[in-house]
Amino acid sequence: MIKIGILGYGNLGKGVEKAILKNDDMELVSVFTRRNPESLTIATKTAQVISINEIENYKDKIDVLIICGGSATDLPVQTPKYAEMFNVIDSFDTHAKIPEHFENVDKAAKKSGKIGIISVGWDPGLFSLNRLYANAILPDGSDYTFWGKGVSQGHSDAIRRIKGVKDAKQYTIPVESALKAVREGKNPQLSTREKHTRECFVVAENGADKTQIEHEIKTMPNYFADYDTTVHFISEEELIKNHSAIPHGGFVLRSGKTSEGTNHIIEYALKLDSNPEFTSSVLVSYARAAFKLNKEGICGCKTVFDIAPKYLINKSDEEIRKTML
Amino acid sequence: MIKIGILGYGNLGKGVEKAILKNDDMELVSVFTRRNPESLTIATKTAQVISINEIENYKDKIDVLIICGGSATDLPVQTPKYAEMFNVIDSFDTHAKIPEHFENVDKAAKKSGKIGIISVGWDPGLFSLNRLYANAILPDGSDYTFWGKGVSQGHSDAIRRIKGVKDAKQYTIPVESALKAVREGKNPQLSTREKHTRECFVVAENGADKTQIEHEIKTMPNYFADYDTTVHFISEEELIKNHSAIPHGGFVLRSGKTSEGTNHIIEYALKLDSNPEFTSSVLVSYARAAFKLNKEGICGCKTVFDIAPKYLINKSDEEIRKTML
Repeated sequence: MIKIGILGYGNLGKGVEKAILKNDDMELVSVFTRRNPESLTIATKTAQVISINEIENYKDKIDVLIICGGSATDLPVQTPKYAEMFNVIDSFDTHAKIPEHFENVDKAAKKSGKIGIISVGWDPGLFSLNRLYANAILPDGSDYTFWGKGVSQGHSDAIRRIKGVKDAKQYTIPVESALKAVREGKNPQLSTREKHTRECFVVAENGADKTQIEHEIKTMPNYFADYDTTVHFISEEELIKNHSAIPHGGFVLRSGKTSEGTNHIIEYALKLDSNPEFTSSVLVSYARAAFKLNKEGICGCKTVFDIAPKYLINKSDEEIRKTML
Repeated sequence: MIKIGILGYGNLGKGVEKAILKNDDMELVSVFTRRNPESLTIATKTAQVISINEIENYKDKIDVLIICGGSATDLPVQTPKYAEMFNVIDSFDTHAKIPEHFENVDKAAKKSGKIGIISVGWDPGLFSLNRLYANAILPDGSDYTFWGKGVSQGHSDAIRRIKGVKDAKQYTIPVESALKAVREGKNPQLSTREKHTRECFVVAENGADKTQIEHEIKTMPNYFADYDTTVHFISEEELIKNHSAIPHGGFVLRSGKTSEGTNHIIEYALKLDSNPEFTSSVLVSYARAAFKLNKEGICGCKTVFDIAPKYLINKSDEEIRKTML
């Protein structure tokens, strides 16, 4: 059994707990929290909730620590810090800062002889893998990534910060005609506006100026100004009833030529009922890889690009060759 | 520069030659043939055509030999034999015999200190990879593979063997409604007939009994009897004009749950203008991996499951982390 620790018990941490139940070579040992451990009730009866201050005592009790913090402030500190004690996995997704994060985790993990796999999930993660495979196979071509239909937490938060908004959910939606043009090998040049639309469901405070809110959303730089945006005002009950799920997904395509007039389309698509539960499932399979690789003596920082696929699955090499090749 | 040799100059060998032109870290050194070398003209002016009998003299002149023979009789002999002299890649696709082929290549490659990557292409190959990744991430789910729309060489050949048939092309076509049901997470149980249809374009000999030919096709065991099959009789000119290309493709899907009521769909799709040219492009990127891995001292038989994605691409680790993650 691979002994797993979870650091942080938000949506992602809870997702990891569920994913472990689907993998019979793993067990959850403990959830580490910055909160008072007694304030936290977890689903796994056989696991403990432990204060983050005591995590060092678990050095020999845990094979892999899955760090479920946020990329803005948590992971840049936590992942290098805990790579000094554990094999660690994170879902660091600030693309521009990945090289710096890699260096920090690499230094810590090489010192401890542990492995740290960073930026695991679906984007970065599975989408990155598909970009790499497709670029390696079709060097002469174009990449396209579409996200959605799904909830963007960042855009929902941006709407919530507007005066007069009580709550909000924002969906990112790929433009069907753009996707179709890519699939047909037309290699379109697509502007931001041509790739995605944004749909917002907003609960306004009593007496708020809805026209003003809608205007502020639609003209918000970076978040909405470059997109065709639709705003719906709904009741709080309706928001809770119809918009509490966290679906997401998207498409990675590469269109490329192997000779004049001979084109190929590689498409990878995800349709996810729950973004955090799916991301957690990816984290858990890379936790297995970290465990196996570290047993082989491998240490340092790794990404999905460095991990041979066989390490992800709970089957022998003979079995996967026989049943999946 | 990675120095490539090609063994066999059929559709696949010609595709490898084209793929090398798209990769500027590679050069074609020679094409080895069982035919009289003087009878063969190749596109690459800087490469030589050499008799297979002289291949041993090229031991130090070639980094990777891409073996472009057939799975029935060529590869089971050629891949182990040449793994004793070269790093080799093949596209062995007789699924049931992969374990045996693996053992033979492994023995030869371990003796020579070379690497042999077998069963490279899209199925087996990229489809296998996607089955593995998706199963690792969603252990509680169902797999679906659909092929087409594309030309099946085996089925076309089977039609050509019928008395009165001059020439034929057979297309395998996935059933759209079955694909749709899978994408919607309905987890359908699909029979052979429900997954694919078969469409045949047949040129009959003068005076042949078309009714009899159509009957023989539609009732042919294994090949057609279990499918809804359509037969069109066309002229030889029409066959040449409209059915000379070798398109193919298909879909690998996994539908799986991470908790009760929470389902996810992972889909991988290929739409290929030329089956052999695309397969060749996959072979070439795994040739790069063989070269890099053997430089690191790795030897023996490998499959796509054993190869970390980073080895496939002509970019540094820093660059892929920065631009593709």
